[in-house]
Amino acid sequence: MRPDLLDRVHTLLPAHHARPEIQLLYDMMRDYPARGGKGIRAELLLASARAHGVREGTPAWEQALWLAATVELFQNWVLIHDDIEDDSEERRGQPALHRTHGVPLALNAGDALHAYMWAAVARANVPGAFEEVLQMIHRTAEGQHVDLAWVEHGRWDLTPADYLDMVRLKTAYYTVVVPLRLGALAAGATPSAAFEAAGVALGAAFQIRDDVLNLTADAGVYGKEIGGDLQEGKRTLMVLDWLERAPASERAAFLTYMQQPRAQKSPEDTRRILDWLRTSGAVDRAQAVADEHARTGLALLDAALADAPDRAAALGILAQMQQLATRHA
Amino acid sequence: MRPDLLDRVHTLLPAHHARPEIQLLYDMMRDYPARGGKGIRAELLLASARAHGVREGTPAWEQALWLAATVELFQNWVLIHDDIEDDSEERRGQPALHRTHGVPLALNAGDALHAYMWAAVARANVPGAFEEVLQMIHRTAEGQHVDLAWVEHGRWDLTPADYLDMVRLKTAYYTVVVPLRLGALAAGATPSAAFEAAGVALGAAFQIRDDVLNLTADAGVYGKEIGGDLQEGKRTLMVLDWLERAPASERAAFLTYMQQPRAQKSPEDTRRILDWLRTSGAVDRAQAVADEHARTGLALLDAALADAPDRAAALGILAQMQQLATRHA
Repeated sequence: MRPDLLDRVHTLLPAHHARPEIQLLYDMMRDYPARGGKGIRAELLLASARAHGVREGTPAWEQALWLAATVELFQNWVLIHDDIEDDSEERRGQPALHRTHGVPLALNAGDALHAYMWAAVARANVPGAFEEVLQMIHRTAEGQHVDLAWVEHGRWDLTPADYLDMVRLKTAYYTVVVPLRLGALAAGATPSAAFEAAGVALGAAFQIRDDVLNLTADAGVYGKEIGGDLQEGKRTLMVLDWLERAPASERAAFLTYMQQPRAQKSPEDTRRILDWLRTSGAVDRAQAVADEHARTGLALLDAALADAPDRAAALGILAQMQQLATRHA
Repeated sequence: MRPDLLDRVHTLLPAHHARPEIQLLYDMMRDYPARGGKGIRAELLLASARAHGVREGTPAWEQALWLAATVELFQNWVLIHDDIEDDSEERRGQPALHRTHGVPLALNAGDALHAYMWAAVARANVPGAFEEVLQMIHRTAEGQHVDLAWVEHGRWDLTPADYLDMVRLKTAYYTVVVPLRLGALAAGATPSAAFEAAGVALGAAFQIRDDVLNLTADAGVYGKEIGGDLQEGKRTLMVLDWLERAPASERAAFLTYMQQPRAQKSPEDTRRILDWLRTSGAVDRAQAVADEHARTGLALLDAALADAPDRAAALGILAQMQQLATRHA
């Protein structure tokens, strides 16, 4: 996230404690935010506030900045817990928090950071923002639950429609819909009803692109282990697409691989399945679906922002959203 | 908790979803609350509201009930996460949530329940309550962190003072100090500054009694596995007290036992250490410390409530607090 926003987050979090044990908790809470995420959601929220007429340096801008800190804090505590849930190895190019400190301390640090997120909501003091953040957590937790339940229960009888419904909940609200809405609320405006459909389409584009990058990105730029989604058994669009068309032998090998615990999955098997996915065309087809959702979402968003008080800022949002579906990290 | 409070909690939580996966999340969120905890913190909060002049059936009573629902929701999401952090086997006489559904789904359900706790705070709409709940989570997470860090880092070089400082943070605020304060806030009163010292002493009495029960209770009444704290490596007052005086051979055997992962700790070893603790007098001495803290806390609380608008309700609090240090479940 932007340095000034990280500074703002840091003013909210405790820094020093005389007891070394508690100092460790404080350091753990500051760890992920300081690793320098992209800050996509904060930027979108601030762009939305601008488009709705908030000028930098005004009290409303100050409120928008606290909401931007809110969505960044949300992202960071959720990532700590996600990394435990998926037993991910890396986050932003470094070991996941629970890999360094163990699950119990990392889980608790995520809870502590969650509470500080609510302190940021209170500092923003924007009518309607509290309820908006509540809804954001409700939907994201539902989507995360669906994603995890498929893994937990070994479900592969899923369609692309199932995937898109999961992604709507898990990704679209907190990544696009809610930042757009919170930006409007910071301006004292009623959020456009069209933000929902636009954000759902753009959120799907964003998540599919994220899944594609997990298979194809440059590891140094991406910040997570390549193919990690396969090792974690994630149900992605390209996997579901590929499964529908794969030769019986490859399908059987894939399902056997997926029944193994992560630690027993061999790098050779992971590479072999990665090759199948890439050469089958499933990755390209998934990217095409992402592009299509991006086009739909951008058109809806363009219409929703047609009467925005600051048209230049509105165009900035559209450019930012367009990048999401084609980004390389 | 009381049936009417459970009903209130249920009105806040979602009940039905067309997607079976999300229905499972909703069922998981309702699981721990429906297992019938004692509701100690809610009762204390409501008694404090009454002592400060809130009459049942008034709008302020309705607000106090939402705050009571808040502390119960807090207790329940924290227990889901605690049980993961400690890898506990049982909760309220049934398997811990992560033992039935796996860590990922249980962790996420705890997060979802955490968010609904904030919905209860908003429903209460009591000035000062939001900040009070924030502080409650901050302190509890710090205490929980200290407790877990000692286990994670294999620390046994601890004194009874270390234990009491940990318990102040981990238990006293959310069990006693904050319920007393929230009850006052529901009445529109300024909480007595003495609630802090009183609550810290009573919270210590409560936690020590809880630790004693974990070693000595009737399993059917207690609802958790007896000796579970030993298997989880909890640093309790009697263990620290016993370690200071134990024969070198017993001390060495204990530290070897504690270096083993939970699954490798044999029931025979657990029983042997339980016997050492019980016969050493450490359990009785810990109970005596609990009694002493209870006496101190009750005297402080009695003075703090001397001018309470409803003296009968104030006496009810004192009786309730006295029970905490001598309870059998």
